[in-house]
Amino acid sequence: MIRILGIDPGSQRTGIGVIDVAGDGRCTYVHCEALKLLDADDFPARLGLLCEGLERVLDEWQPQHVAIETVFMAKSATSALKLGHARGAALATVVRRRLKVSEYAPRVIKQSLVGRGAAEKDQVQHMVRLLLNLPAMKLQADAADALAVALTHAHMSATADRTGVSVAMLRRR
Amino acid sequence: MIRILGIDPGSQRTGIGVIDVAGDGRCTYVHCEALKLLDADDFPARLGLLCEGLERVLDEWQPQHVAIETVFMAKSATSALKLGHARGAALATVVRRRLKVSEYAPRVIKQSLVGRGAAEKDQVQHMVRLLLNLPAMKLQADAADALAVALTHAHMSATADRTGVSVAMLRRR
Repeated sequence: MIRILGIDPGSQRTGIGVIDVAGDGRCTYVHCEALKLLDADDFPARLGLLCEGLERVLDEWQPQHVAIETVFMAKSATSALKLGHARGAALATVVRRRLKVSEYAPRVIKQSLVGRGAAEKDQVQHMVRLLLNLPAMKLQADAADALAVALTHAHMSATADRTGVSVAMLRRR
Repeated sequence: MIRILGIDPGSQRTGIGVIDVAGDGRCTYVHCEALKLLDADDFPARLGLLCEGLERVLDEWQPQHVAIETVFMAKSATSALKLGHARGAALATVVRRRLKVSEYAPRVIKQSLVGRGAAEKDQVQHMVRLLLNLPAMKLQADAADALAVALTHAHMSATADRTGVSVAMLRRR
């Protein structure tokens, strides 16, 4: 069994999702939450909250793999910059724990879960519920996205194991 | 006496500068270096190196104040994103130590050191040498920029003390 932490970084909210993958590739829901960062006094303090929250999750759930969304082309340099800060803080926290991070583009996540790179967000959420058997659970959008990237990593790792193609190769497709 | 750490963040090299400010406002050079991040295996590992280097500097030099450059409008969303990652990792590291960070725009740093917001980079370097009495020392560009932001913070704090105007107000001018 492998435990995967998925992260959907953002400077207002950062989604966290934890799943377990059995040897047969079956995925089980473990935990999800959205770290709320807007309560912080200023922007640097938001990044501090992000790291504190992430470290708490790493301590509590002890994932072996970490997967994170890459950034879609942001609307503006300003929003790219803010998102970059959040992602940088998250990546640094994970890397400092000597955990390897796999990065997946939103298009790859959609392709992996829905079978179409241009799927809508609610289709992705629907598949997250279905694959993790969470029919009635209220899923916060950022937490659902974090579970989606964790599921993508589970699928990619399984495909890589089965075919001998590296995950890096699969991600490039 | 107050010890100030200046940071010039970048995803290839991050400049670090440490100065002491005496009660009369006189500044003394303590330390500077450029953290070289390109040796890392991948981009997340670079951010790990950045944080490790920064934590080493914080441990060794124990600054009371931290000052960091804000980002000039980056040429592209991609470069804004990379710079944002580096800055986010640096800010998160500092904030986790409960150190307060002051942010200064490049224009403000130039204005503070050279007296002109549109000064050239080598003029800023020249003033860094002059103010810190480092005539012969070879200064790496990123390290010099880090010393420049530390000096700016020293000047701004002294002006704020003298006039009762907050540093936040001065930064906005």
